[in-house]
Amino acid sequence: MSITTVAAYAAPSAKAPLERTTVPRRPVGEHDVLIDIKYAGICHSDIHQARDGWGEGIYPMVPGHEIAGLVAEVGDGVTKFKVGDRVGVGCFVDSCRECEYCKQGLEQYCSGAGVSTYNSLGKDGEPTYGGYSTHIVVDENYTLRIPEGVGLDEAAPLLCAGITLYSPLAHWNAGPGKKVAIVGLGGLGHMGVKIAHALGAEVTVLSQSLRKQEDGKKLGADHFYATSDPKTFEDLAGTFDLIISTVSAPLDFSAYLSLVKTDGALVNVGAPEEPISLNLFSLIGGRKTLAGSMIGGIAETQAMLDFCALHGLGAEIEVIRADQINEAYERVINSDVRYRFVIDTATI
Amino acid sequence: MSITTVAAYAAPSAKAPLERTTVPRRPVGEHDVLIDIKYAGICHSDIHQARDGWGEGIYPMVPGHEIAGLVAEVGDGVTKFKVGDRVGVGCFVDSCRECEYCKQGLEQYCSGAGVSTYNSLGKDGEPTYGGYSTHIVVDENYTLRIPEGVGLDEAAPLLCAGITLYSPLAHWNAGPGKKVAIVGLGGLGHMGVKIAHALGAEVTVLSQSLRKQEDGKKLGADHFYATSDPKTFEDLAGTFDLIISTVSAPLDFSAYLSLVKTDGALVNVGAPEEPISLNLFSLIGGRKTLAGSMIGGIAETQAMLDFCALHGLGAEIEVIRADQINEAYERVINSDVRYRFVIDTATI
Repeated sequence: MSITTVAAYAAPSAKAPLERTTVPRRPVGEHDVLIDIKYAGICHSDIHQARDGWGEGIYPMVPGHEIAGLVAEVGDGVTKFKVGDRVGVGCFVDSCRECEYCKQGLEQYCSGAGVSTYNSLGKDGEPTYGGYSTHIVVDENYTLRIPEGVGLDEAAPLLCAGITLYSPLAHWNAGPGKKVAIVGLGGLGHMGVKIAHALGAEVTVLSQSLRKQEDGKKLGADHFYATSDPKTFEDLAGTFDLIISTVSAPLDFSAYLSLVKTDGALVNVGAPEEPISLNLFSLIGGRKTLAGSMIGGIAETQAMLDFCALHGLGAEIEVIRADQINEAYERVINSDVRYRFVIDTATI
Repeated sequence: MSITTVAAYAAPSAKAPLERTTVPRRPVGEHDVLIDIKYAGICHSDIHQARDGWGEGIYPMVPGHEIAGLVAEVGDGVTKFKVGDRVGVGCFVDSCRECEYCKQGLEQYCSGAGVSTYNSLGKDGEPTYGGYSTHIVVDENYTLRIPEGVGLDEAAPLLCAGITLYSPLAHWNAGPGKKVAIVGLGGLGHMGVKIAHALGAEVTVLSQSLRKQEDGKKLGADHFYATSDPKTFEDLAGTFDLIISTVSAPLDFSAYLSLVKTDGALVNVGAPEEPISLNLFSLIGGRKTLAGSMIGGIAETQAMLDFCALHGLGAEIEVIRADQINEAYERVINSDVRYRFVIDTATI
């Protein structure tokens, strides 16, 4: 049995609220799995894309790239999953599989024809629709296994927020003996604190105010500083091996780089839309790195899920009904969420 | 015998031309060597410091941190050198020796009291005077050995220009199978081409025009592109593992980053004085690094000299008399040098 029309919440156009609708799903192909979606996280980029399409929105748009569910059907050639398996889908559902980056397991940087989970065109030329839906059909090679040890609801945000932080933390060697700062304690940042702590690093939160200090410590932060206090930048000068900025507000990058040790890195996973201003001497005087990072590859995403399950790490979530999505969007925009909304897709 | 007053060329003040004078040198201490300077290179930063002191010039100022000569006398405790040895001195003549960076051999990033070769205060509280002089007294631990295989005249610029390029090339793993671009073919850039080529990398010069193309190829470049031609940026998109920018003109950093491969780096060793503008998405969409690098540590500088001697690499130089220094400064400012002026200190 293949379900070809499924219920979903979609933005009919860039300016309209999301509403219930139906969208097509392709028949289950030889290497596909049909996933009975249980939960879908709300990522800030869902709002960006649904509302203004980053200039190229495909409507109706069904957002959602933090997807957790159960395998409901598998294609004849599927070897990795069986019906009933706990699975997840992240930000992309296919890639060219041939470029040097795909071959290295860096499918997120595919230089060929990558396929995003929504607001993209599949290899069949049809629009892709995301996780605010009851079902999705995905190639088994772009489907992740969610191990026991983490609930499907709290696992959903790992597929974007989790891997977005795990990947740079792993790549830049966060671990015992390393001092790591996370800038911003939101949906991304709170996963950064949890994962960096579990990796064994000494973790500092750099937040605008001390408002979330208690939360930060509970999540695993060793230290918590307010960046609105200039003394923070004096006290922490030259302290960190790695700073990961999750914020999209424009930072004073020279000031943040002054907190980085020689040979350290400031890595952006959030990013201001406007160009930033940077004094290059803040990099030269300590062989410092300013870098960016974007989600992770399939193998690394699986490693992240395994790591999180092993350490019992899920996202801090507020589960909502589908008819609360538009309200949740407003609350995300107002930073009024601790720390991720997750849609119970049974309510669609 | 210790020489305590030596001939030198000094800038008497920020606005005055350099002129012949004498400066004191400290007595040869237990761990010091007295160096009979044979050649001193002219670095663009000599001009910056001599002319405007970067805001903190100590006058009279004897520039020169690309020093090559022969050991004339050694202190009682000196074990590394003997009279007659071929030696060099670079940008610093001491460091705190205690901070974590000194302990790692990264003395150039000393977080304590580093001592620059000139325009600095020594540990005795006295001003340091650089290489535009007949003699200098330096601690043996901050003195480099210049191996046979490279002339003292062409070796002098290795102490700054050479190490400035060698260090990031080595740190970011330039070598066989790697595509490296050098932005700017001047005093720094021409050493970058030579060293990157000798390291086995495929080397591209990115220069404003094709004017120096023939030179670039002779120096070891495999390819040469004009950055004034927009087609260069189309043709070379996503090509380089490593780009080293030696220029201090403000670049379009997003454009240059588009030439870097995923996981590649754009490293600045020259730097615009004004802050640059950067779109962070140009880093995020390929886990790219924008970094800086500054000269090298003592051990690495020695490794560079050994490497250069092994491969017969010296700087391309124009040897001048001391009374041509002021004229040479004008020519450096006008980029009218291929590729480094070196003062014959016998003419001081």
